[in-house]
Amino acid sequence: MDHADSTSDTSAPASSAGTGAGAGGELAEEITSLEGIPALSLDAISSVAYGPEAMLAVLATAGAGALAKIEPITVAIVLLLVILVLSYRQVIRAYPDGGGCYAVSKANLGHRASLLAGASLIVDYVLTVAVSIAAGVAALVSAFPGLAPDSLPISLGVLAVLTALNLRGLATSARALLLPTAVFIVGIYVVIVAGLFRSHPLPGAEIHVSVPTAAAAVGVLLLLKAFAAGCSALTGVEAIANDVPIFRAPKVRRAMRTEVLLGGILGTMLLGLSVLTVRFHIAPEASQTVLSQITGASVGRGAIYYVVDLSTTAILAIAANTSFGGLPVLASLLARDNLLPHVFGLRGDRPVYRYGVVVLAALAGVLLVAVDANTNALIPLFAIGVFTGFTLSQTGLVRHWLHERPGRWWARAGLNGLGAAMTAVATVIFVVTKFAAGAWVVVIAIPALIVLFSRIDAYYRGVADEIGLGTLPPAPVAERSLVVVAVTAVSKMTAAALTAALSLADEVVAVSVQFDDQRAASLRSDWDRWNPGVPLTVLRPPTRSITKPMLAHLDDLMHQDCSQVLVLIPEVEPRKWRHQLLQNQRGILLANDLRRHCDVNVARMPFRLAKM
Amino acid sequence: MDHADSTSDTSAPASSAGTGAGAGGELAEEITSLEGIPALSLDAISSVAYGPEAMLAVLATAGAGALAKIEPITVAIVLLLVILVLSYRQVIRAYPDGGGCYAVSKANLGHRASLLAGASLIVDYVLTVAVSIAAGVAALVSAFPGLAPDSLPISLGVLAVLTALNLRGLATSARALLLPTAVFIVGIYVVIVAGLFRSHPLPGAEIHVSVPTAAAAVGVLLLLKAFAAGCSALTGVEAIANDVPIFRAPKVRRAMRTEVLLGGILGTMLLGLSVLTVRFHIAPEASQTVLSQITGASVGRGAIYYVVDLSTTAILAIAANTSFGGLPVLASLLARDNLLPHVFGLRGDRPVYRYGVVVLAALAGVLLVAVDANTNALIPLFAIGVFTGFTLSQTGLVRHWLHERPGRWWARAGLNGLGAAMTAVATVIFVVTKFAAGAWVVVIAIPALIVLFSRIDAYYRGVADEIGLGTLPPAPVAERSLVVVAVTAVSKMTAAALTAALSLADEVVAVSVQFDDQRAASLRSDWDRWNPGVPLTVLRPPTRSITKPMLAHLDDLMHQDCSQVLVLIPEVEPRKWRHQLLQNQRGILLANDLRRHCDVNVARMPFRLAKM
Repeated sequence: MDHADSTSDTSAPASSAGTGAGAGGELAEEITSLEGIPALSLDAISSVAYGPEAMLAVLATAGAGALAKIEPITVAIVLLLVILVLSYRQVIRAYPDGGGCYAVSKANLGHRASLLAGASLIVDYVLTVAVSIAAGVAALVSAFPGLAPDSLPISLGVLAVLTALNLRGLATSARALLLPTAVFIVGIYVVIVAGLFRSHPLPGAEIHVSVPTAAAAVGVLLLLKAFAAGCSALTGVEAIANDVPIFRAPKVRRAMRTEVLLGGILGTMLLGLSVLTVRFHIAPEASQTVLSQITGASVGRGAIYYVVDLSTTAILAIAANTSFGGLPVLASLLARDNLLPHVFGLRGDRPVYRYGVVVLAALAGVLLVAVDANTNALIPLFAIGVFTGFTLSQTGLVRHWLHERPGRWWARAGLNGLGAAMTAVATVIFVVTKFAAGAWVVVIAIPALIVLFSRIDAYYRGVADEIGLGTLPPAPVAERSLVVVAVTAVSKMTAAALTAALSLADEVVAVSVQFDDQRAASLRSDWDRWNPGVPLTVLRPPTRSITKPMLAHLDDLMHQDCSQVLVLIPEVEPRKWRHQLLQNQRGILLANDLRRHCDVNVARMPFRLAKM
Repeated sequence: MDHADSTSDTSAPASSAGTGAGAGGELAEEITSLEGIPALSLDAISSVAYGPEAMLAVLATAGAGALAKIEPITVAIVLLLVILVLSYRQVIRAYPDGGGCYAVSKANLGHRASLLAGASLIVDYVLTVAVSIAAGVAALVSAFPGLAPDSLPISLGVLAVLTALNLRGLATSARALLLPTAVFIVGIYVVIVAGLFRSHPLPGAEIHVSVPTAAAAVGVLLLLKAFAAGCSALTGVEAIANDVPIFRAPKVRRAMRTEVLLGGILGTMLLGLSVLTVRFHIAPEASQTVLSQITGASVGRGAIYYVVDLSTTAILAIAANTSFGGLPVLASLLARDNLLPHVFGLRGDRPVYRYGVVVLAALAGVLLVAVDANTNALIPLFAIGVFTGFTLSQTGLVRHWLHERPGRWWARAGLNGLGAAMTAVATVIFVVTKFAAGAWVVVIAIPALIVLFSRIDAYYRGVADEIGLGTLPPAPVAERSLVVVAVTAVSKMTAAALTAALSLADEVVAVSVQFDDQRAASLRSDWDRWNPGVPLTVLRPPTRSITKPMLAHLDDLMHQDCSQVLVLIPEVEPRKWRHQLLQNQRGILLANDLRRHCDVNVARMPFRLAKM
C-alpha cells in the first residue's frame, strides 16, 4: 500500500498529526482541558447559531403551530449528543495519537471504508467553511440590516481573508481564542437566563411572525426533516478526538474532560434556546437570524445584544478557520496513502499545506456563490458527511474492542455500537428527507471522490511497477555524451554556457533558431570571428516555430550518436523578481516542449546579472 | 537601439505586418476594395451605433431644445472626416507597407513621439474592444429589454467568446464578413431613406422624451463637448492605412479607393441619422439606444427593425474583434523595439500572439466592469487616444513630405498639416471638456505607458551591456565537472539518472532529502545492496524544507571543488497530460528554488513512462 509513495516526489506529512489540526494552522503550545474548547470545539459550539434556526425553517413550512415542536426534537438531538460524547470519550482512549475518522476506519474497517471516511471528511470540511461563514455573515446582517444586499460579497471577503491568513501560515494560539470564546459562551448563557426570567419578549425586539397561523398537520416526515436539520448542531463534536496529541499530559484525561465539557455546554445551550424560541413565539425571518431574535427578545437591542451578535460572527469565522487547519492535514494523509496527488503532501519551507488551503477555499467559494451565502440552503448538505464519519468511527471502534478485548470490552463495544446505529439511522434520515433539497449533491460528491481516490491509487501503483520500485536495477555505466547549447547571440552568457558544456560533455554543438535572414547572417559572422571551438548550426525555419526545427535537429543528432544528450539553454537571471517578467519565457517554453516531445535532458542555465 | 534585442529569447514578429492585422487573427487571402470595408472598416462604420447617441447624451443635459444642435455638430464632424479621409489617402501612398501611426511616428518624429504613438494605440485598442462590446449589447438589449439587468454578464460573455476564438487562432475571411456588413449598411440606409419620407415617427415606436423641455442656454462649452463625444464616430478611419499590404495589387489604389468608400458611407450615415434624430424628436433613453429608436420610428418594430438591430450587434462584435487582430501585432512590434517584455513577441507554434490577446481581454474586461457595460461612460475616454494617433500620423507625414519633396509636396504637406492641426485641436477639446467625465484615466494611462516603455528599454539596454552583447568574450575552456543527482528511492529511474550523470561528469554524487527516519534507513540499505558506484548522502533535516538542506549541501560540495556543478533531478514523465498533476511538483519547486538561490545549473530529467 505504501510502496508507490516514494515514486513521486512528495515529502510525507508529519505522522503524529490527526485528521484535524485544531483552530487553523498549527498550535504553538500544548493545551489544557479548558483551552480545548476554543482550540477544538468552536465548530461544535458555534453551531447553536444555525442549528435551531435550521429546525425552525423546516417546522415553519407547516405553520406557526408546528414551531413548538422544536422542544421535543431538541431533546432527541441532545440525547444523541450525550451518546456521541460518551462514544468519543472512548475514541480518545482507544486512539490517543489522534483518532480521526480516516485513521480509525483505515485501521479497523479496511481500505474501502477508509476511502468513504476520507471522502465524507473532505465534504465535511468544505461545508463547515461555507456554513460557518454564511451563518457568521447572517449574524452580522441581523445587527446591521443595511448590509443585507451584500451578504455574498462579505462572505467571499471573509473567505479571502481566512485563505490569505492560512496561506501565510497562521499560528493560532488557543489562549488568544479563549477570550472571544468566553464572551460568546457567557453571552449566550446570559441571553438564556435572562429569557427564562421573562414571560414575554422585550417590546423593542420587534418580532414579526410571518408564518401562517393556520396549523397544517404535523406529520412524521416533517419531524424527521426538522431532526435532520437540527443535527447540523452536532457537527464538530469529533474534533477533540482527532487532536488528542495537542493536549498537555495527561493527554487522554484532559481530552476526555474537554469532550464532556463541550457536551455540557452545547446540550444546555440547545435546550435553553429551544425553550426561549417557543416562549417568545420566534419564527424564522429573512432579515435576521433566530439567534438574533432570541437575543433581542431576552436582553433587548442594547449593548449586550451587539456583544453577543458580534461575538457570534467572530466565533463562526474562527470555526470556519478550523477546517483550514483540518483539510490540508487530511489531504496530506490521503496523499501519503496515494489517494490524492502527492502535491497535497508538499509543505515547502513554510509550515502550511498550501495546495490543500487553496482547494478548500475554492470549493467553499463555489458553494457560497451557488447558494448566495444562504445558510439554510447549505444545511441539507451538511450533516450527511459528518454523520457518515460518526458512523464509521464508531463502527471501527466496535471492531477495535472486539479485537483488543480490554476490561469491560462488551460495555465499550455496546456503547459505540449504539452510537454507530443511531448515527447510521440519522444519516439515512438525512439522505431520504433532504435528498431533493440538496443532499443529492453530497450523494454524488462522496462516490465521485471515492472513484477519484481509487484511480489515483491505481496510477501510483502503475508508476511504481513501471519504474521498478523495490527491485534493484542493473548498475549504471557511463556512455558517450553530447551537449547541445541553444544560442541566440555571441555574448558572455553564451561563453559561460559553452564552458559548462565543454566541461560536461564528450562532444559539444551549438544551435540557434533565427527567423530573420539578416540576424542569422550576423550571428554566423560573429561566431566565426569569435571561433570558440564549437560548431554552430543556424536553423532558419519557414514558420515561426522554435520547437519544431529544434526537435528535428535533435533527432538528426541523436541518430548519429545514440547516447546521452543534454540540451543546455542559457538564460539571463535578473536580480529583481519583477524583471523575470522581461526575460526567459522562450527558454521555459522551449525547455517544456523539448521535455514533452523528445528523449533528451534539458537544463536551463542561469546567467546571473550583477547589476540589473 | 536594436542591440539589446537578442539578449532575451524572443523571436521577432513578422516584419511585414503593420500595426493592425485586419478583422481579428490573420486574413488568409488578399482583398479587393469592396472587401476592404468588412475587413478593415467595421470599427469606423459600426461607430454610427454610438457616435450620434454620445452627442445626444451631452446635448440632453441642456434640455430638449438643445437636441436639434446635433445637425450642425454632425456637419462639423463630417467635414473633419473628409479631411481625415483625404489625409489618410496620402498616408496610404507614402507608406504602402502599412503606415501605422507607430511606424510613421518612429520613422519621422523620433523615439519620443513613437512612444506616445504606441501608448495611445494601446489605449485605443483596449477602448475599441470595450466600447464596441458595450454598444453591441446595448443594441441587443434595445430589442429584448428583458435582458437589460444582465448587460454586464452578457458583455463579459461576448468578450470571453472573442478571446477564446482569438486564442485558438481565428482565421477570418473578409468574404465571410461581407454579408453581415452588407446587411448592416443596407439596413441603415433603408432606415434613413424610409425616415426621410416620413414627417412623423411611426406610432408603434413609443418614443418617451424624458428630457426637460425647458431649454437651458446652449453654450459653446456644451457644443464643444457634444462635438468631442461625436468624434468617437471617427475612430477607425486609420485602419485601412495600417494594412495596405493585405490588398490585392494594385494595393495602393485599392486601399485609397476603400478609404474614400468608407468616408462616403460613414459621412452619409452620420448626416442622415442626425436629420432623423431631429425630425423624430429623439432623446437618449436608458432602455433603448438612439439607433434603435430611430429604426423603430422609421420602419416600425417589425422584421426590418430586428434585422437592423441584430446586425448592429453582430457588426459591433466583429469590430471589437478588429482590436484582437491589432493589439497583439502592435505589442510584438513594441517588444521587438525593447519597449514591452519580449514575451509579447512570442508566437509559439500557432499563429497567435497569445499574450497580447490575454492582456487585451483582461484590460477590456476591467473597463467593462468598471463602467457596468455602459457605452456612454466609456465615450469620454475613447477618442483621445485615437485623435492623438491621427495627429502624430499626419504630423509625421508633413515631415515626410518636407524631407522627400515629391511632386506637389507642398500641397500634400499642406493637407496633412491641416489634418494634423484639426485633430490636434480636437484632442485638446476632448481632454479639456471631458477631463472630469473620465478622460483623466487616459491622461494618466498614456504617460504611465510611456514611462513603462522607457524603463523596459533601459532594462534591456542594461542587460545587453552586462552580458557583453556585441563584444567577443574569451574562448571557453573545459573545467572539472560535478553532477549531483537528486534521489528519492532506488529504481530504474534513479539508474537512468546515474547513467546520464556518469556519462556527463568527471565526478558524480547522489543526495536525498528524507523526513522520516525509517525511510532514510531503508533508502540507505537499498543503496548499499545495489552499490551503483556513486556515493549517496542522505540528508535528514529537522524541518520540512527540501530546498534549505539541499542548498547547504551544495554549498559544501562547491567549496571543495569550485568548477562546473550540475544538479540532475529525475522525474516521472507520464504519457497522459492529466497525470502531470499527480507528478513532479517537488522537482519543479526544487529546480526553481535552486536556480534562484545558488550558482548551479539544474536539469530536470524526464523518465518517460510507456504504460501509464
